[in-house]
Amino acid sequence: MAEINVGIIGFGTVGAGTFEALKTNREIISARVGADVVVKRIADLDVKTDRGVPVDPGVLTTDAMEIIEDSSIDIVVELIGGLTKAKELILLALERGKHVVTANKALLAEYGKEIYAAADRVGVNLAFEASVGGGIPIIGALRRGLAANRIKTIMGILNGTSNYILTRMTREGLPYADVVSDAVRLGYAEDPPTLDVEGIDAAHKLAVLISIVFGSPFSFSEIYREGISRLTPDDIRYAADFGYGVKLLAVARDTEEGLEARVHPAMVPKNHIMANVNDVFNAIYIEGDFVGPNLFYGLGAGRRPTGSAVVSDIIEIARQIRCGAGRLMPPLAHVHAPGGALKLRPIDQLRTEYYFRVSAVDRPGVLSKIAGVLGDHEISISSVIQKGRDLRGFVPIVMVTHEALEMNVRKAMAVLDAMDVLTDKIVMVRVERG
Amino acid sequence: MAEINVGIIGFGTVGAGTFEALKTNREIISARVGADVVVKRIADLDVKTDRGVPVDPGVLTTDAMEIIEDSSIDIVVELIGGLTKAKELILLALERGKHVVTANKALLAEYGKEIYAAADRVGVNLAFEASVGGGIPIIGALRRGLAANRIKTIMGILNGTSNYILTRMTREGLPYADVVSDAVRLGYAEDPPTLDVEGIDAAHKLAVLISIVFGSPFSFSEIYREGISRLTPDDIRYAADFGYGVKLLAVARDTEEGLEARVHPAMVPKNHIMANVNDVFNAIYIEGDFVGPNLFYGLGAGRRPTGSAVVSDIIEIARQIRCGAGRLMPPLAHVHAPGGALKLRPIDQLRTEYYFRVSAVDRPGVLSKIAGVLGDHEISISSVIQKGRDLRGFVPIVMVTHEALEMNVRKAMAVLDAMDVLTDKIVMVRVERG
Repeated sequence: MAEINVGIIGFGTVGAGTFEALKTNREIISARVGADVVVKRIADLDVKTDRGVPVDPGVLTTDAMEIIEDSSIDIVVELIGGLTKAKELILLALERGKHVVTANKALLAEYGKEIYAAADRVGVNLAFEASVGGGIPIIGALRRGLAANRIKTIMGILNGTSNYILTRMTREGLPYADVVSDAVRLGYAEDPPTLDVEGIDAAHKLAVLISIVFGSPFSFSEIYREGISRLTPDDIRYAADFGYGVKLLAVARDTEEGLEARVHPAMVPKNHIMANVNDVFNAIYIEGDFVGPNLFYGLGAGRRPTGSAVVSDIIEIARQIRCGAGRLMPPLAHVHAPGGALKLRPIDQLRTEYYFRVSAVDRPGVLSKIAGVLGDHEISISSVIQKGRDLRGFVPIVMVTHEALEMNVRKAMAVLDAMDVLTDKIVMVRVERG
Repeated sequence: MAEINVGIIGFGTVGAGTFEALKTNREIISARVGADVVVKRIADLDVKTDRGVPVDPGVLTTDAMEIIEDSSIDIVVELIGGLTKAKELILLALERGKHVVTANKALLAEYGKEIYAAADRVGVNLAFEASVGGGIPIIGALRRGLAANRIKTIMGILNGTSNYILTRMTREGLPYADVVSDAVRLGYAEDPPTLDVEGIDAAHKLAVLISIVFGSPFSFSEIYREGISRLTPDDIRYAADFGYGVKLLAVARDTEEGLEARVHPAMVPKNHIMANVNDVFNAIYIEGDFVGPNLFYGLGAGRRPTGSAVVSDIIEIARQIRCGAGRLMPPLAHVHAPGGALKLRPIDQLRTEYYFRVSAVDRPGVLSKIAGVLGDHEISISSVIQKGRDLRGFVPIVMVTHEALEMNVRKAMAVLDAMDVLTDKIVMVRVERG
């Protein structure tokens, strides 16, 4: 049986999971490929640490160039993460005519344009299933399974850490800070957890999804972004009273006024399948013009799920090598660009329903004053809950509006925040119906 | 730009959806393929009926052989359904060296072995994404995205009609018969709805999924099967009391004692994502040894979703034709068989938890008598609810057991059904935790 040689650069969590999957399921993978997929070399600066999977010491090297310069290696797998070095290695591998597999969403979201172009120039495969949604085969679904569709909406829970935090805040009524320190202690979150909780990681992944869907590199910097740190257990409880669950959503929506691209906490109707995605799970909800709504759900991180995704790319490329095929698809799954440049719809132009929590002094007429400001900005209230005084003697007022224009919402919030009856800044959360 | 020619046989619901998707999204599809995908011919016995999508009359023919014998046609799409004629046409098309796309699950579940072998002999593609889960790209996920995994569990809600019926019985407390006649009236169910409600359609689809996962044709007749018609709104309400939702599940589980393959109503814990799949939606829950749990969710039927799936197959084959590749994958996505023949685990050997509903006369000691019979068969009760007399003066007793052996459950049920204190046959529903 033919052999297809793989070199893995980076033997951390994902590298070890990739190697373990190829080793454990070698027989089944060779049956599916029709050739033996062999890990010929693994490069890491640290070749001493036990990765929990036995590896022939002769396979290990500290020099990534030994993989890139090895003419017997067909597929180079970049799993070191980070930007500069990873980019350099990927570009070198592509120049040598290697197929490249990577899990590096940050790199693709920042320098995708350059990397996709390099793969196109050489005509090799650049695959990155593991860059979004861990083991969930969402990139494959967009490249292939849903390729008949004009995609109208992407709505993703793309960061397991922040979903875990929101789930525990919801179930246990705990404040954000307590859950975060717990998550750090349990190893579910980095310290500090900025990339996860501020929506940066989710925005990286959304940039990759948008690039695939529209066949054009989309930059992370174009995505509007808010994190989850200002949410309180009160907001989550009030959301439940109104019939919503709170999720950190990554949303892209193709509208007549342009593409919306945003990551922020959102209230999702409880009976929507996305509101039932809990703990560290990820999910991507896609709406296509023919397929209608589709959901893909699974573990968005971790050694074994991410290893599964990396190996799925290796298998797909190995099948092409086995049967001597040229490259079936460019990295962004479009042989020629389907349209002009993507026009963005600025966040100010968003139209949705809004949740507000206002802390006000307990004085007659405060609610009517607030409603008046909203009305002046063409924002009408659909439901409101006014609770009794809290411990500090302030009255929390929570409300959900009818659909309104975000520009008006921001203006109204600025007016309200300047009013002396408010004891704290307004909290605003967008409603997302999918 | 190169042209790739498609012939569609069967211009009913799915045929029209397929044609409409290719026509509506022609520009985006040609960008993704790198060639123009042209519907050169559509065959149907009825070329008069308006299908809701404009078609050049010159494209229509009543003679399917005009497609099969047309040497300019690269891909033949079989969408007439049924067994004999569809099989004949597919085999003829394969013999002529055409790539074949079909949505015909019944045919694959009954005669898959012969059809897969014919495609293998000629070395062309045989693709059938639309045969399971409508628009959900589950076949692609199993062939590609999850190909690094040994699949341990498949748990599918594969029939939208029965899911619609169970959802309405759950939400509205209506009896089975009322919802069915409503479903027939609304066009959600055939009259009679046997294929749907008796689990036949779901078992067809499960046979296709098992074939793909294990790389070996699996016959419909080997699947254990029970329908939903004996469930009452009471059972669904009691299930909710115990914390479960009721679904018609298609389950395949790879155990050390062999492969379980079964379709039956099951109680799923309410916080399981599968319990939240409602209305006409389908979902397939897959557990792989590396990826862990994964869920794929979407519309399992209908003109546009099924058209989306058919066209995704056309796109994939067209990409291979465009770049002159040989066939990347055999129909079952295994180049050589990964193991021996599949050993089945008979339903008698199943071990799970069970729900029972017993109608008994209201006499002292009845519950202890029932519990005694269960105990004699090594079945222990985990929770029990005994309600007051119903309108006829009988007492319904409902219980959930700990894990038990199905053989023992059947024996115990036979003993209980013969007892004079029972006023009706016992209703049993398996619990499925996923």
